[in-house]
Amino acid sequence: MPAIDGVRIATAAAGIRYPDRIDLLLALFDPGTSVAGVLTKSKTASAPVDWCRERLLHGMARALVVNSGNANAFTGKRGRAAVKLTAEAAAAAADCLEAEIYIASTGVIGEPLDAGKIAARLGELAGKAEANAFEAAARAIMTTDTFPKLATRQTEIDGVAITINGIAKGAGMIAPDMATMLAFLFTDAAIEPAALRDCLHPAVDDSFNAITIDGDTSTSDTALLFATGRAVTRGAPLIAHGGDPRLAMFRFALHDLMRDLAQQVVKDGEGLTKFVTVKVIGAESKTAARTIAKSIANSPLVKTALAGEDPNWGRIVAAVGKAGEKADRDRLAVWLGDILVAKDGEVAPGYREAMGAAYMKQQEIAITVDVGVGKDGATVWTCDLTKDYIAINADYRS
Amino acid sequence: MPAIDGVRIATAAAGIRYPDRIDLLLALFDPGTSVAGVLTKSKTASAPVDWCRERLLHGMARALVVNSGNANAFTGKRGRAAVKLTAEAAAAAADCLEAEIYIASTGVIGEPLDAGKIAARLGELAGKAEANAFEAAARAIMTTDTFPKLATRQTEIDGVAITINGIAKGAGMIAPDMATMLAFLFTDAAIEPAALRDCLHPAVDDSFNAITIDGDTSTSDTALLFATGRAVTRGAPLIAHGGDPRLAMFRFALHDLMRDLAQQVVKDGEGLTKFVTVKVIGAESKTAARTIAKSIANSPLVKTALAGEDPNWGRIVAAVGKAGEKADRDRLAVWLGDILVAKDGEVAPGYREAMGAAYMKQQEIAITVDVGVGKDGATVWTCDLTKDYIAINADYRS
Repeated sequence: MPAIDGVRIATAAAGIRYPDRIDLLLALFDPGTSVAGVLTKSKTASAPVDWCRERLLHGMARALVVNSGNANAFTGKRGRAAVKLTAEAAAAAADCLEAEIYIASTGVIGEPLDAGKIAARLGELAGKAEANAFEAAARAIMTTDTFPKLATRQTEIDGVAITINGIAKGAGMIAPDMATMLAFLFTDAAIEPAALRDCLHPAVDDSFNAITIDGDTSTSDTALLFATGRAVTRGAPLIAHGGDPRLAMFRFALHDLMRDLAQQVVKDGEGLTKFVTVKVIGAESKTAARTIAKSIANSPLVKTALAGEDPNWGRIVAAVGKAGEKADRDRLAVWLGDILVAKDGEVAPGYREAMGAAYMKQQEIAITVDVGVGKDGATVWTCDLTKDYIAINADYRS
Repeated sequence: MPAIDGVRIATAAAGIRYPDRIDLLLALFDPGTSVAGVLTKSKTASAPVDWCRERLLHGMARALVVNSGNANAFTGKRGRAAVKLTAEAAAAAADCLEAEIYIASTGVIGEPLDAGKIAARLGELAGKAEANAFEAAARAIMTTDTFPKLATRQTEIDGVAITINGIAKGAGMIAPDMATMLAFLFTDAAIEPAALRDCLHPAVDDSFNAITIDGDTSTSDTALLFATGRAVTRGAPLIAHGGDPRLAMFRFALHDLMRDLAQQVVKDGEGLTKFVTVKVIGAESKTAARTIAKSIANSPLVKTALAGEDPNWGRIVAAVGKAGEKADRDRLAVWLGDILVAKDGEVAPGYREAMGAAYMKQQEIAITVDVGVGKDGATVWTCDLTKDYIAINADYRS
């Protein structure tokens, strides 16, 4: 991962849940850094999410503090106090206003977070923060993730080279409405907060909000995009409006990077053995297409059939039916990969179960459904549902 | 199970999917029998569901034909032809109009049903149908069910004794919007079709529509209530209006019987080890309460915690949050059984994890959540999500 001019990072083992596990991340940003974010729609959002939501109104940032091990969610007044203590300590360490501090927490819900463990380490971390620590950052935010998730893209704005780096964590609780994960994106581009929001929000819809592992949405979903603006020293313009045509390549690269991270999150789905792309076409609207695709992707019966390598397309049809969106049963078509399995509401002529069974042995599965009523489509990514998912989640706290 | 005057039943092994398995049910009704029904809301409903939906418009019945092994769903024109052939053969066997025949099918989706196997047996079954065969009927409609589901209630209408019998099948694909099951109810009461509908529909909401196993809804959900009217021979009145006060005890008994059957279905949930009652109180409306309760009951993270006997109430709170209905995070309270686990948005004073852990070892678990915004409540019943669920559903067709 390349460095991002204006970003410095340090990590530590603060003993938040387990001893000797790297569980704390501090990222420092140069003055003038703008930020945009998308936060969980959960009605029981965590204290750090509430904090970020208010700070995003002005959209300026000097530091990001993330801990794993404890989500500081459903922790009441003590949770708010923990956020405040963290913000105070980070502002002192970064020599900035508390309002310029962004905070995210991931881990167990409902247990008080001892923010003293975080506050005590931030001064030391600020002192040793360095430019090239993105992989360490990605590791610090992991919970049940089995590998760190990173991506980088080179792009340009008005002919000036721009870098975007991203890190994410996911694993369980991966679902719609902010896809229940943490993602932090960093760029040296110079983009004002409102324009940065215009870049981030549509890209979230087709990346983090287009993945689902178990249909569960967490209290802590957070995606933040920090733009240090340091590229101005190399001649980049400061972009004030989201509609500025000079953002075209940046938007494309950002979206591409976010989809990459989102797919990495799915590929680390708990207990998965298959990576599954569900594409719905012929829908009445993009929203309807996504609802149907998610109905398929979240169906336990579809997901267990995938785990069993069973080309049980009847379950796919049933999932289309329960989505509640318009679909023409008698014009429905289903493909497994390139194999036409069903058309015009019944099994396709020439399809044999052995063809589907052979296809299902692959590790990457593509399901395509034409619902036969319109011209819109959507794609979501998911994984299968295995006994290991149960083992991981039944034993998570023990 | 007592007999129902005006109902005769016979079953057979028709070889629909497996040889030597009882997979065909014929029930014959005396002339004058009325019927009401609730059918799946799936947009990809099966051919027999389409058939019943039309016949329910007039609400008169002389026979019911049910097969297991093949759902005759997503079978296109051939599916409609199979239903027609079945209806013709049943009408000949029962000496009635095709329009008085009701049909339901359960089993694999997307494979053509050979209705010839059914048609060939109906004459013989009509000849040997007998009054007291409800247990055989309950067995004939089983798929992955591990036990037959039956219930009976004695009640009265205007002082005359009335019997209601019910059979159901469930197991997988148990979820809202007609709880994805087959249920057939029989009574000797004399109730006209419109009034019978008024009795059945509200009872479905608080029974079959209040259970969920995996959030999946099938293409074939069917609940039919047949009233032979034979109780008039013992002096019972013919009831024409749903609002007739003489129906009060009948309604109560019907609802009680349907809740009993619904709970039997949950208790036979695939791979379950826990029977779970989720009660939501303090909600803005009954609909909001049910949505939140189902969000909890369908959360894979809650269901796996139940399987792991983990009192992970944080996952319950997260499921409240993702339901999208109004809830006051900082007034939320959670009980496991009678143990107050959380109140006012954080862990309750005096609660210790060991208390919750001991409670979770029970086989029947009650989760109660006060969402702190209103006065309405709802209860749903569900089960845990285990490795055996995966095994059953990954291997279903192999």
